[in-house]
Amino acid sequence: MKLAQLGEFGLIERIRAAAPAGRLRLGIGDDCAAQALGPGELLLTTTDLLVEGVHFRREWTDLRRLGRKSVSVNVSDIAAMGGEPRALYLALALPPDLTLEEVDAFTSGVLEAAGEYGAVLAGGDTCRSPGPLLISVTAEGAVPEGEMIRRSGARPGDALYVSGTLGDSALALRHLLAGEEPPPPLAARHHDPAARVRLGRSLAAAGIASAMIDLSDGLLADLGHILTASGTGAEVEVRALPLSPEFRNALAADPDLLDLALSGGEDYELLFTVPSGVERHLGDAAGEAGIQVTRIGKIVHSGAGCTVRDADGGIRAGTRRGFNHFEG
Amino acid sequence: MKLAQLGEFGLIERIRAAAPAGRLRLGIGDDCAAQALGPGELLLTTTDLLVEGVHFRREWTDLRRLGRKSVSVNVSDIAAMGGEPRALYLALALPPDLTLEEVDAFTSGVLEAAGEYGAVLAGGDTCRSPGPLLISVTAEGAVPEGEMIRRSGARPGDALYVSGTLGDSALALRHLLAGEEPPPPLAARHHDPAARVRLGRSLAAAGIASAMIDLSDGLLADLGHILTASGTGAEVEVRALPLSPEFRNALAADPDLLDLALSGGEDYELLFTVPSGVERHLGDAAGEAGIQVTRIGKIVHSGAGCTVRDADGGIRAGTRRGFNHFEG
Repeated sequence: MKLAQLGEFGLIERIRAAAPAGRLRLGIGDDCAAQALGPGELLLTTTDLLVEGVHFRREWTDLRRLGRKSVSVNVSDIAAMGGEPRALYLALALPPDLTLEEVDAFTSGVLEAAGEYGAVLAGGDTCRSPGPLLISVTAEGAVPEGEMIRRSGARPGDALYVSGTLGDSALALRHLLAGEEPPPPLAARHHDPAARVRLGRSLAAAGIASAMIDLSDGLLADLGHILTASGTGAEVEVRALPLSPEFRNALAADPDLLDLALSGGEDYELLFTVPSGVERHLGDAAGEAGIQVTRIGKIVHSGAGCTVRDADGGIRAGTRRGFNHFEG
Repeated sequence: MKLAQLGEFGLIERIRAAAPAGRLRLGIGDDCAAQALGPGELLLTTTDLLVEGVHFRREWTDLRRLGRKSVSVNVSDIAAMGGEPRALYLALALPPDLTLEEVDAFTSGVLEAAGEYGAVLAGGDTCRSPGPLLISVTAEGAVPEGEMIRRSGARPGDALYVSGTLGDSALALRHLLAGEEPPPPLAARHHDPAARVRLGRSLAAAGIASAMIDLSDGLLADLGHILTASGTGAEVEVRALPLSPEFRNALAADPDLLDLALSGGEDYELLFTVPSGVERHLGDAAGEAGIQVTRIGKIVHSGAGCTVRDADGGIRAGTRRGFNHFEG
């Protein structure tokens, strides 16, 4: 078999199946791994690799924002478990053309974002790169035992919610790929996304979310991870999808852009499920975090798969299912 | 200023000076960072980035050994603090020509080595690489509070010890760079080094080492880190350096190879200092771990700097001080 056929998630599943879990509370296959920390507390750990030419292009962003984004995309995985980040580890391979000023700008972005999330830069590694700029970030966080939110807790009847708006980052990327400068609000969502740490903590502390994931690979792909882990299906209502004014403008001109809201990557919003008994407390929890949350569908039994309902009530066919890193 | 002038350790110091330490027990600047874990226990974390063409060449090694080495070089930093590894996180960027069989071989090497060190693979990230194979490994370990060994504890009068033998990996690399197959014992030291976890734990539990570091950048460069952190100097006796039979053979033919024992990288042995009052317990601790340790010099006051004494008692001049990642 080829890697391209297996795909990123096939490869992860293959490694997971071969790795013993030992005394971990949670091993490979969720947003973070979890281990016992202090009494009543779990340690959450997650790692991300950002590769120039794959995850970003230096000509599209400044180094300070790239440093901020490197932290946010990693911390977003801690948020998705209901935790708060504490320590960050940064490994960098630096291409020969990078100046010290650029490295300083990158580092200041890392430290700035770390501070905003309440985390410290605790260690790392540096070396030269033969070509691309390589950034590896590992985040450690903590969550009170019993509050950790996994992907596997969704049950039929739960409501499906998402924070913020969808597709803005993917729409900005489409502009960049076409050689255009994206409108500033879209550019900000792509270059400097915010990890929803306060919302994640708030949902966890109030016991509101039964399952949660952060949106990095696109709504339908990441929803798919919740459905697989939970053994359920889902229905998503297109007319309920939260869209920014900029996205709505673009959509009015080109209805095909809806695919970006359904399958575009790098939203870094939280997708979560809420049992009906606690749905009435959601407004308070989201209000506390200062983030809008929107009900976009519901969890159903597994036989029903994942259905996307168009605005006219019909079933939408052939929606692309997110990004496969190993495809040609 | 250029990165090449600043150097890897200048860059790390620059980042360390800008980063607040927060509630960490130990931040940037030792082999691992340390945080409170459970009662009476510290969490140790370290991260390494291995880049094809910088740290390894695929044509020189098989993927299983590369997987093993990726784990060992990382776990070696946990050993250097006196800790034991628990969880590993592996991020991989895979070039398009890598086959699934090669990825499987790499993963099996990672899992094999993890198991030998008593650690589990707990998470990671995978994506494609536009060129080189990129490997990022983060290790988490634990050490009982009060047993952690830092770089900063060396005091004048302490004896200076090293485990195993020196220069074998660098001598193997010299063969490889010359297009020759290294003798198997040297090749094994280069491609599949062992992290000295048992020795590190044993020294920590017995309270024998006052300072410790693992040898990744070369004896004198890594000794330099202990001296800087401890505010001391040192004297190293060339005739005391532990050398393998293969290294002695090569040295007999070319005396200049001694530089590889003093400054060659990737030994992954432990360099540590021992106060005179506890030196008599060292034999038991090393015997328990099954590793030879050798007294190679002593710690002196800081004004004396680092002196290397040749076999005839003269002071050796102009010794290269290890590897600078950012030099042309």
